[in-house]
Amino acid sequence: MVSRVVFGRGSFSQLEDIIAPKRLSVSAPFIFLVDAVFEKKATLSGRIPLAYDDKVIFISADEEPKTSQVDALVEEIILTCKQRPSGIIGIGGGTIMDMAKAVAIMITNEGESKDYQGWDLVKNPAIYHVGIPTISGTGAEVSRTTILTGPVRKLGINSDYTPFDQVILDPELTKGVPKDQWFYTGMDCYVHCIESLNGTYLNAFSQSYGEKALELCKEIFLDDTLDEKESADKLMMASWHGGMSIAYSQVGVAHAMSYGLGYLLGVKHGVGNCIVFEHLEEYYPEGVAMYKKMRAKHNITIPQGICTNLTDEQFNIMIDVALSLEPLWENAIGKNWQKVMTREKLRALYSKM
Amino acid sequence: MVSRVVFGRGSFSQLEDIIAPKRLSVSAPFIFLVDAVFEKKATLSGRIPLAYDDKVIFISADEEPKTSQVDALVEEIILTCKQRPSGIIGIGGGTIMDMAKAVAIMITNEGESKDYQGWDLVKNPAIYHVGIPTISGTGAEVSRTTILTGPVRKLGINSDYTPFDQVILDPELTKGVPKDQWFYTGMDCYVHCIESLNGTYLNAFSQSYGEKALELCKEIFLDDTLDEKESADKLMMASWHGGMSIAYSQVGVAHAMSYGLGYLLGVKHGVGNCIVFEHLEEYYPEGVAMYKKMRAKHNITIPQGICTNLTDEQFNIMIDVALSLEPLWENAIGKNWQKVMTREKLRALYSKM
Repeated sequence: MVSRVVFGRGSFSQLEDIIAPKRLSVSAPFIFLVDAVFEKKATLSGRIPLAYDDKVIFISADEEPKTSQVDALVEEIILTCKQRPSGIIGIGGGTIMDMAKAVAIMITNEGESKDYQGWDLVKNPAIYHVGIPTISGTGAEVSRTTILTGPVRKLGINSDYTPFDQVILDPELTKGVPKDQWFYTGMDCYVHCIESLNGTYLNAFSQSYGEKALELCKEIFLDDTLDEKESADKLMMASWHGGMSIAYSQVGVAHAMSYGLGYLLGVKHGVGNCIVFEHLEEYYPEGVAMYKKMRAKHNITIPQGICTNLTDEQFNIMIDVALSLEPLWENAIGKNWQKVMTREKLRALYSKM
Repeated sequence: MVSRVVFGRGSFSQLEDIIAPKRLSVSAPFIFLVDAVFEKKATLSGRIPLAYDDKVIFISADEEPKTSQVDALVEEIILTCKQRPSGIIGIGGGTIMDMAKAVAIMITNEGESKDYQGWDLVKNPAIYHVGIPTISGTGAEVSRTTILTGPVRKLGINSDYTPFDQVILDPELTKGVPKDQWFYTGMDCYVHCIESLNGTYLNAFSQSYGEKALELCKEIFLDDTLDEKESADKLMMASWHGGMSIAYSQVGVAHAMSYGLGYLLGVKHGVGNCIVFEHLEEYYPEGVAMYKKMRAKHNITIPQGICTNLTDEQFNIMIDVALSLEPLWENAIGKNWQKVMTREKLRALYSKM
């Protein structure tokens, strides 16, 4: 779990005080990995507390994070820093959160990041790393994974060393997120709740977090009782609780299929979840019905026909990626999932998207 | 925050695997501080994984934990161990949780534990410490405090080093708790929620945890929908969420007054909260009404007349202890609390108990 967290509007200003005691020496910089959308927005980038050899690296979140990107960043950091960095600070959405966690791990672990995709393969503790989300819903700020697209799979580095040492939850930073993106990413949280609460891995721990996150999602996306700030504050907490819920259970059908779309077509995770979830009435009837109400209420368009012109080979790649995620299927369907979720069934589902 | 947590019936069996990698050497023992009620119950004490010089110290929870008790334990541990211990494992209720946290801190910090009662006074990181609650409600398993009765005050050692490094939440361990104790301790959680949710320090973080804990309390103490196991599982989570809620806000009137009773009369915290809460309609009208329903439903008797024969001097001691807890009053009543909560008002309230 995350060791330390601060919450509150304006809490980003505490960053300087929080990281100062963690500086190992004047030659051991902090590396700030920041979403490229902030490159020309001094409202945030001008507030990053730089000292000595600290550096800011802007990263585009237009594509899902890749293992090759992590390895290149780690190499750049090692080559250009006089000493091992004091820490990695990620400021952005799920892509940046996952990059920051992966880079912090790979600075102290040999080889390539693809070698660590899986469960509990990391040998050495990561360097100090801080997560500061600027969009809410992914749960990446609280999870013990970092989802990366590697040469053979889209899979996280799941380990006890993955979670951030420190998280700063400042809902002010989410102001200005485009509406579509707000919805897609918020639905990532909503889908986490539905998949966790309807999974066979459910326990009282995950249930209590999942129920609270779901309740917050309903309030945010269906009721009209919250003002803009309250809604942003609550969505940040929904993301947190939803992330905690799946950390102690598992995701399900939507995530498995969304990873297939992401791997083959580079579809971003949030919108990918929505594209898939539209067609999962059979598995999550109530969850899909409520999702459709939310989508209609906010007048959001979901891309359609993205699989229309795919070849058999391409379908097979997506199906392979999705089926390789065994824990997700077992959680969603049970131990006999392989009898239920055949390749034909998956092909039929993907064909509708 | 707690860095690592496992949850589940039977998860106590994982203790050996969890602590093994944390053993510093064969001469650096683990010290198990265990509630004395388990001394003759092999169902638990027989399952404690002892090796090398590890030792079990049984501690009575009949009285609230004292700074003098912490100091004596630390001295005993230092004098009898060949090396600094590998870790402290607390197995019991709030008293044992708080003792374990305080001992882990005092092994690496000079002086007496009374010197650290307050906020952020601890200088050095504590040694590795694990919390395993055997009764639910206190939130001590998740909090950054350890409430101790010292020579001049009843106050916690609040610090970033206080929280456990590891918590094991195994609801099986709460089986066999006497009904009164179950209720009093459960009400500690309930009161945490009411005080947090009605406080001026409330924010979206605390609110989301407090609301979930309160919802679980209602389900457990008022509805008739849960079987014994579900109820125990959910109360363990309610305790956790209630503890998180106050960690990011504050408690209020009931806790301030209960500390007064505890300091002067040694009243245990759980029942002390109940004794006080009976008379707080003015501050928490809905909360007190619901509490009374719960108490009636479970046919619980709350001690009465405990202040009947107190002297003026004794009342003044309780009032001094209660009023010294400024953050609690400010949270409960607001910045002008001193105008509202006069000594006379407090005397009148205590006189009813």
